[in-house]
Order: sequence, then structure tokens, then C-alpha cells
Amino acid sequence: MRFRFLGTSTSVGVPVIGCDCPTCVSSDPRDDRSRSSGYLEGPFGKILIDAGPDLRQQALREKLSKVDAVLYTHSHLDHVMGFDELRAFCWRRKSPLPLHGSPETLKALATMFPWAFTKEKISPGYVHPSAQPFDGPFKIKNLLITPIEVCHGNVRTHGFRFDHPGAKSLVYISDVKTIPSDSLDLIKGSDILIIDALREKSHSTHMSVAEALESVETLKVPRAYLTHISHELDCATLSATLPNSISIAYDGLSLDL
Amino acid sequence: MRFRFLGTSTSVGVPVIGCDCPTCVSSDPRDDRSRSSGYLEGPFGKILIDAGPDLRQQALREKLSKVDAVLYTHSHLDHVMGFDELRAFCWRRKSPLPLHGSPETLKALATMFPWAFTKEKISPGYVHPSAQPFDGPFKIKNLLITPIEVCHGNVRTHGFRFDHPGAKSLVYISDVKTIPSDSLDLIKGSDILIIDALREKSHSTHMSVAEALESVETLKVPRAYLTHISHELDCATLSATLPNSISIAYDGLSLDL
Repeated sequence: MRFRFLGTSTSVGVPVIGCDCPTCVSSDPRDDRSRSSGYLEGPFGKILIDAGPDLRQQALREKLSKVDAVLYTHSHLDHVMGFDELRAFCWRRKSPLPLHGSPETLKALATMFPWAFTKEKISPGYVHPSAQPFDGPFKIKNLLITPIEVCHGNVRTHGFRFDHPGAKSLVYISDVKTIPSDSLDLIKGSDILIIDALREKSHSTHMSVAEALESVETLKVPRAYLTHISHELDCATLSATLPNSISIAYDGLSLDL
Repeated sequence: MRFRFLGTSTSVGVPVIGCDCPTCVSSDPRDDRSRSSGYLEGPFGKILIDAGPDLRQQALREKLSKVDAVLYTHSHLDHVMGFDELRAFCWRRKSPLPLHGSPETLKALATMFPWAFTKEKISPGYVHPSAQPFDGPFKIKNLLITPIEVCHGNVRTHGFRFDHPGAKSLVYISDVKTIPSDSLDLIKGSDILIIDALREKSHSTHMSVAEALESVETLKVPRAYLTHISHELDCATLSATLPNSISIAYDGLSLDL
């Protein structure tokens, strides 16, 4: 099983348009961040986590030609605006592309992109989705996927826990301020945690670095990666302050599980 | 007055995700095409034509930090999916960002992005638009903008003619199959025509290269650029066949008017 960070930034990306702060003009390629997204591969197939606005660039960079399913964390624009880029993956499938999300997320997608969810015949070149609302753990072949409900300000988003025989268990939570206790229980015992850490300063809808580190410690996860990073953090400076078991993620980072 | 081609591709971009055709693997930087968009600058300010899915990458590449108005050709996804990227331009303005489009186009934007068009207070970090439906020519300072209605299959889209004292007159039409006779009259006498030329083979909603060349000849426009190009055309091969007065556009090409 392999996980790739397709994108690791907050909603506006890094660099930010028109910004000349040290991170936005950094020559460190790790500070060039596209919007948060992940790609999980294994014997179960190829799973895309979120289809954000940078999906085309991410797919070209990582030479992705296949997606067997999409998991959605929530319907904020920085996680769904790449919907139409899914066309290229649909052309290479015989069946509709399964989109897994909460009922609320899938409803939001159908509101934004109604022609794709209509019962009428869809043009062959368009996205052909198969909405798969989740309400608890589900499987794709031998991969157990456990949605983890978390709070992103007033919005409910989902992280995911991935368990596959013979592989390390992985938890991915990109947009979170607080984790309810029931959800904490779902994370415990996992091997690797990927978690939101927007910036040093506190924020109303995202964890700060300190909050993310505290969560990792509380959960006793042996290895963690910080993601959904804003331009207020540069990779080199933050990396120097982190314990060995915690890394700052960057676009293109690949984890062999 | 200066016009820059921010993007010159059809809806899926070039290279196409997962495609290994000669154009998609071309090392010619002119064959690296993002979705169609333009940027017009002059004493009247800075005008963005369409806010497509590649707006962030285009703005970073061209070092754009300011947009004073957006003109929309139509509401297909490859022309509007960069809506949320307009945030960065809104942060640097005191007043809402004028979005000029046909009533149908602006209605479609309000359906897709309802929170931005609500009368309720919008979060300071979000897009603050000011919808400006057009129904005929209008001015931004001394720039006369004439919307030109054209047929894009069954869809009505708009091109624009730009006239400014002391500058060459420019017509931009990115998505067109046929031009009604009233609209042909609006183009006549212009100095430069930028026009849709999807590929060699005929298409139901876009002009082919032959159709675009025929339009240029009929309209007697002295200089023309082909845009909205698919991966079925590579820049070097097509360029070799074009008359001197007609060029194939590419991302980043700048025209001094």
C-alpha cells in the first residue's frame, strides 16, 4: 500500500497569488503547495482523496492515469473544484466512478454539478459518477475504510482510517479543529496519522501546529505528518522544531505502508 | 494596452491527464496549455477574461496581483471554476469585484457559488463580487467593451471587442462554432481577432482550424490568433501551415496593442 500527498496546502495554495512573503518566494520546492489531496494505491486499486482545484496539475505531476474511487472529506471548494478533471479518469472506465462521501457532501456535489447526477443520459465525455453515501465503515475489496467525523469550525468533515492486511494503518484528517471523543477512539492504535496544522497561530476552523502536536501525543500515534499548511509556515523552519516522529508533509511525498 | 494569453486550451487542458500522444508529451513549451483565459491591461485598469480552473497557476506564472474586473464569456466549467481564486484579488480591493457577464452567465455563477451573491454579510476572506449583467456595449473608463453574441453549439456565448483611444482594436472569441450576421458586423474593422480553433477535424460546438481561417478571411481582419486548442494540434506543425497573418496562440503570449 502506498500513499502519496498530491497536495498539502490550505485553500488558497502556497505561494498565494500576489504574495511576496518569505514562504511564497521560497526556493525550497517543499514550499510549493497545491490544495490538499491524497492518492492511495494497493491491491484494492487507486483511490483519490478529494478532487480539489489542482487535480489536473497533481495528476500530471504524479503521472496518474487511473482512479477507481474518490473519497470526499467535505464539500468546501478547495476539496471539490476539480470535479470536472475527473472526466479524464472516467473515459478509461467501463462503469461510473464511485464517489464516497457523507450524504451532505454528495448532496452538495449534486447541487453544484447537477448534470452529472441526473438520471438523463450523460454525454460520453463528461464525468459519470456513482454517488456512494457512507454511514460508517465500508470496504473496497480488502481495504477497510473508516470515516472519522471531526469538527472543522461549525462544519462537520470526515477523515478516514485505512486498514489493509499486511500494511500499516493510516489515518488522514485534512480539515479539523477538534476531534470528538468517539472519533478519537477510531484513530487510536493506528500507525500513521496525517493531520491538519494550518499555522502557528490559533485559527477558528483548523488546528494550529501546537494543537496538531498535542493530538498526536494524546493519540499516541507513533508517526505523524502535518498537512493543510498555509504560507505562514515554511517547511525548513518548521521541520527544525518538530520531534523526529513528526514531519511536515509536502506535495509529492510518498509513504510506503 | 496589452493583452496576455493566460490560457489557450480546450476544457481538459494540454497535456491531457494520462495521455501520451505526441502533443501531450511534446517538449515545446507552447504545447503546455492551460484553460482559455486572457488579461487586458491599460489606463482603464486590469481586466481578466474568464476565471477558469487554472487561474491560480496562471496568476502565479504571470505575476498578476491585481484584477479590476472580470468579463465572462459563458458559464461552462472551464471558464468559471477559478471563481474561488478571485479571493486573492478581492483582498486587495476596497469595493466588490465587478463581474461582467450575460444575465444567464451571472445567474449560473450565483447558482454555483450562492454564498458569494447573498445579501448577507460575507466573510472578509471570501470573494466579494458585484454582478454586472450586460445587454450591449459598456465602458470601463475609456475602454469600450462590446459583447459579441456567438453560437457554441446550442449554447450562446459572448466574445468581446475592445476599443480604446490610441490602441489597436481587439476581438476575443474563445468558444464559438458559428457567428450570426449581426455579430459579424461587430467584428468588422477590428485590427486583431483571437478566435477558437479546436482542432483540424470538424466539431459540433467549436470551430475547426479551417472554419477559423475562413472566418478571418471573411472578416478581413489583418491579424489573427487561434486559441482554445486541443491536444489534437501541436504548435510547431500547425504554425508551419498558417499564413503569416495568422498565428497559433500559446500561454504567456503577450500582444502590445
